[in-house]
Amino acid sequence: MTANGEEPQIEDLKLADPEEDVVNPWSVSSSSQEGVDYDKLIKRFGSSKIDQELIDRWEKVTGKPAHHLLRRGMFFSHRDVHTILTNYEQGKPFYLYTGRGPSSESMHVGHLIPFIFTKWIQDVFNVPLVIQLTDDEKFLWKDLTVEEATRLAHQNAKDIIAIGFDVNKTFIFSDFTYMGQCPDFYRNISRIQKCVTFNQVKGIFGFGDSDVIGKIAFPAIQAAPSFSTSFPLIFGAAKVPCLIPCAIDQDPYFRMTRDVAPRLGFPKPALLHSTFIPALQGANTKMSASDNNTAIFLTDTPKQIKTKVNKYAFSGGQASVEEHRKLGGDCKVDVAYQYLRYFLEDDERLEQIRQDYTSGALLTGELKKLLIDQLQPIVAAHQEKKSKITDEMVKQFMTPRPLNFVK
Amino acid sequence: MTANGEEPQIEDLKLADPEEDVVNPWSVSSSSQEGVDYDKLIKRFGSSKIDQELIDRWEKVTGKPAHHLLRRGMFFSHRDVHTILTNYEQGKPFYLYTGRGPSSESMHVGHLIPFIFTKWIQDVFNVPLVIQLTDDEKFLWKDLTVEEATRLAHQNAKDIIAIGFDVNKTFIFSDFTYMGQCPDFYRNISRIQKCVTFNQVKGIFGFGDSDVIGKIAFPAIQAAPSFSTSFPLIFGAAKVPCLIPCAIDQDPYFRMTRDVAPRLGFPKPALLHSTFIPALQGANTKMSASDNNTAIFLTDTPKQIKTKVNKYAFSGGQASVEEHRKLGGDCKVDVAYQYLRYFLEDDERLEQIRQDYTSGALLTGELKKLLIDQLQPIVAAHQEKKSKITDEMVKQFMTPRPLNFVK
Repeated sequence: MTANGEEPQIEDLKLADPEEDVVNPWSVSSSSQEGVDYDKLIKRFGSSKIDQELIDRWEKVTGKPAHHLLRRGMFFSHRDVHTILTNYEQGKPFYLYTGRGPSSESMHVGHLIPFIFTKWIQDVFNVPLVIQLTDDEKFLWKDLTVEEATRLAHQNAKDIIAIGFDVNKTFIFSDFTYMGQCPDFYRNISRIQKCVTFNQVKGIFGFGDSDVIGKIAFPAIQAAPSFSTSFPLIFGAAKVPCLIPCAIDQDPYFRMTRDVAPRLGFPKPALLHSTFIPALQGANTKMSASDNNTAIFLTDTPKQIKTKVNKYAFSGGQASVEEHRKLGGDCKVDVAYQYLRYFLEDDERLEQIRQDYTSGALLTGELKKLLIDQLQPIVAAHQEKKSKITDEMVKQFMTPRPLNFVK
Repeated sequence: MTANGEEPQIEDLKLADPEEDVVNPWSVSSSSQEGVDYDKLIKRFGSSKIDQELIDRWEKVTGKPAHHLLRRGMFFSHRDVHTILTNYEQGKPFYLYTGRGPSSESMHVGHLIPFIFTKWIQDVFNVPLVIQLTDDEKFLWKDLTVEEATRLAHQNAKDIIAIGFDVNKTFIFSDFTYMGQCPDFYRNISRIQKCVTFNQVKGIFGFGDSDVIGKIAFPAIQAAPSFSTSFPLIFGAAKVPCLIPCAIDQDPYFRMTRDVAPRLGFPKPALLHSTFIPALQGANTKMSASDNNTAIFLTDTPKQIKTKVNKYAFSGGQASVEEHRKLGGDCKVDVAYQYLRYFLEDDERLEQIRQDYTSGALLTGELKKLLIDQLQPIVAAHQEKKSKITDEMVKQFMTPRPLNFVK
């Protein structure tokens, strides 16, 4: 909502002015060590803050405690989640849609976050989930061949499956593959592409005259899975509402989608927006799959994790032990502490760590060790699970099919 | 080729200046009663004139007489047809690609021309043929639903099949359907869309900022069938050269295609360009499927044909019989005579008619009767053949499959 309570029209969905944080699907940056100002972003994007009232209602409706990523504000913004909850109370169905751009072989721990959260929502509500791998997007934006982008999509599918999704409730698809399997997908893409002008994608995404026509047309391909008729084997011809958990940088796609949905007779997709997990170097940049030292990768060894955290994780501590004991550390900018907020589920322990680091009782090296101890088993367990994901299992998840709910 | 013998680069492929004939995929018009100046168009588009040398070589290479549409200059311009003939002499394969935008239920006799000619080429060379029905294009440009555009494509397929194509050598496809049947089609589309900028389609097609992104991306969809890997069941992974017979207004698509082909490692498609059959009202407009009185439709009764020709066919004759006997008629602008050039195969009879009308021995009413006598059985025979085309036959032609050559 904007200041006057109206959802912005597609014409108003302009890019940030140069003095603001840059947050769009291809670039996220902030000049502040604390990272993007998410409250400002909510105002600029016209979304709603996830407040205690929404979290309380979520817990009441589902009868289950909220996930720590929701309680701690890593998912901080939403659109129309109250509507989804109301529908759920009334026994009306919805489905989940999320995705990934497969730009590299290995994913980093930041990439896990939306999937872990999405799996939790799926478990809580017991709803179908579709996961789009935008190999066509990565082909268009990166120096990749079609074949390489498709191969990366299948590789990434293994990491996603390893998170523990239920094959009976989850369909994973790559655009290059699914486009040739389901005429309804292209039909919805074409319907969206008939509703959106170049002027509009110029305003929303910042495209220019020298951009290739593939990029200009792509937003419709990320929009189309928001409409359930793109998956006839799952939903038939029913127009089922959709909830999209995603990082806030993907919101431009779905503002566009929400703008065209009523014109095409579809419900507007609801959204849950996450913050960005900071790079090891600090919250003023985003983790990057293309710079090996900015992130903990899912392929890293315990030793690599230890070295990276100790060597690169930006510290909120003081210059010397003496000073640190006296002045204490700054959790707001300390990357080890910020990571623990994502990966340490125990609220009481996290609060104790926060107090100890802030007071100076806990030293930077000790805090880093806590994170290393937390991440090493998570990454090792992921590798163990991934090693058991066969090509046959990937094929199962990626085969268009009815989903099969056994409650 | 341009004046200096170079094929124009994609940047040079601009639209006509306002004083020239308008010839692009969505609009054809000329202020002259004789219609478009095709010699000027050859210069502007940088194509080559079909001269007697090419026709002689064609006849020599194939060992068969040239079709009257080729001999009489209805196919007047080409790109790289000498290369196709050289390849054929060397026993190297090629395939044919043509298409239709299914904007209306019934086609007119003008729509038959490229298909009749394409069938003749197919028979002479015994090569595979793919026919694209751009239902997505018509959905994007017209006030049609996806379902209606797809239905029109299937209806039009019946008219095309009735022309007599061999199901063993011919694959007909609608974009909305084939896109969901063959991942390789979308892969080639995406490859083309990565090579072409908005600036380029702006220059070639005249798109503007307020055009929808579906239109902006569409040229790649018409380009992709020029590359044989879009049809893996027919050609496997082989990069087979392609020859495209089409009306000259479709050339912008294929100039763009020829520009990107080498960058993608494909041979440039060769082209054979036809003139436009004039509207009944005269050569300064194009027949229109949306104005029932501008054309003879394939659904017209013998009586309707008679009435339309007598009532609407622009006459090159004089105001009175006396004057006509004295001054003679003008075949260059007389629509009945022009139509006979398309539909009367007998060269000697046509020449006699031309002489008689020019001298005034043949009156306008008599000339119109000759055309009526020619068209009525052609249209009736078409209706008879079309009535025997079943949905099952349409399905056969439109099923992706290997083609089966029995020589």
